[in-house]
Amino acid sequence: MTPLMNPQELEAALRQIGATRYHNLHPLHRLMHEGRCTKTQLQAWALNRYYYQAMIPVKDSTILSRIEDAALRRIWRQRIIDHDGEHEADGGIYRWIKLAEGLGLDRELVVQARAILPTTRYAVEAYIHFCATKTLLEAIASSLTELFSSNIIGERVSGMLANYDFVTRETLAYFTARPVQAQRDSDFAIEWVKEHARTVEQQQAVLRALEFKCDVLWAQSDALMHAYVEGHVPPGAWRGEGA
Amino acid sequence: MTPLMNPQELEAALRQIGATRYHNLHPLHRLMHEGRCTKTQLQAWALNRYYYQAMIPVKDSTILSRIEDAALRRIWRQRIIDHDGEHEADGGIYRWIKLAEGLGLDRELVVQARAILPTTRYAVEAYIHFCATKTLLEAIASSLTELFSSNIIGERVSGMLANYDFVTRETLAYFTARPVQAQRDSDFAIEWVKEHARTVEQQQAVLRALEFKCDVLWAQSDALMHAYVEGHVPPGAWRGEGA
Repeated sequence: MTPLMNPQELEAALRQIGATRYHNLHPLHRLMHEGRCTKTQLQAWALNRYYYQAMIPVKDSTILSRIEDAALRRIWRQRIIDHDGEHEADGGIYRWIKLAEGLGLDRELVVQARAILPTTRYAVEAYIHFCATKTLLEAIASSLTELFSSNIIGERVSGMLANYDFVTRETLAYFTARPVQAQRDSDFAIEWVKEHARTVEQQQAVLRALEFKCDVLWAQSDALMHAYVEGHVPPGAWRGEGA
Repeated sequence: MTPLMNPQELEAALRQIGATRYHNLHPLHRLMHEGRCTKTQLQAWALNRYYYQAMIPVKDSTILSRIEDAALRRIWRQRIIDHDGEHEADGGIYRWIKLAEGLGLDRELVVQARAILPTTRYAVEAYIHFCATKTLLEAIASSLTELFSSNIIGERVSGMLANYDFVTRETLAYFTARPVQAQRDSDFAIEWVKEHARTVEQQQAVLRALEFKCDVLWAQSDALMHAYVEGHVPPGAWRGEGA
């Protein structure tokens, strides 16, 4: 029988999932930060990842719509504010557009998101659908990949600045703002999850939710690698500059 | 401006999408029917494709629930009957389980569908979500990949029987029943679509729906190829016998 864990054990089990399934372990991440990607490959990453970034406030609005407690909603809404910003030239989505433009992509191509890989779209939609249909506990637990994001961001920024002469610190401004927000958000979320996952079934559901979310991120990297590193761009998707 | 098509032109435009985007053009299909897949690769295909097959009646039930006309429901329900069968040892899903077992897979592994690729799950869920949220016309149009299925089935059956000594005609019984059903279903669906897509907007939506569905099939083949041909099986997914 699966034992009930105390809060520390649950946190350790969650961190163990990150240590084995977070996408910092994906071969594409290594290629990127070691400078072994072409500009087109980095553009494809920025183009596809934009769709994920742009849908995060939709995902968080979905969660917000399921919270009946105003105090919890006041905390959760900050995530939406961080991504959408206070005005048009502010917020995480805006900074991701700047990142994509800094890599040489056309703004319209990026924000229309018509040329992304179908698998990117399916994975992001699966994440939103998960947050709309699972328990609130599972929806909140699925955000816990942020526990592991500061490491990948650190590697990515230093590696990309060192290895690609067309990447500037200004282009990567998105990543300057994120770690502080992600730490604040994940500090809150893990405490909330530890407090509310009180039965074996809830604890197991929380672990599966974090695995699910790791899969959502991993699948996006798999699709990028298959299309743009291994050279199998599916019909209808962006094929690179001038194609 | 996009012109209004007559029904024959609309059918030609739909068939052109099949000629350029249907998954008979995917490299994995060629590897499979030319005998260049390992048994593990064919097993991975059968295991993942089971989830798609098993969800088809869920997809068709979703469509059925959106039809207000009893006459159209009487026609559409036959798809569900074909897949679910008249009793436990009958129907398309049963025959797909037999196919997977014939390739040496454990029945429980297959029907639980826990070890499939996350991308298989996301693509299938995207298809169901599409049929639940788009117009009925688009949902019905997305079924039109069946117009192109008899060719791929013919190539697959003759190629697999000729090239793999562990594949028998009995194992492939699923494919014996399907072409007649698919022809009947797609004959009906294309006439219905041609009759009901009367505006430029409706016709364009119908074309986009068929492209969407081709993408759903293509993405599943991409994921299989990346994982089991190129050797990047994601965390948590089936890794082959004894792994």
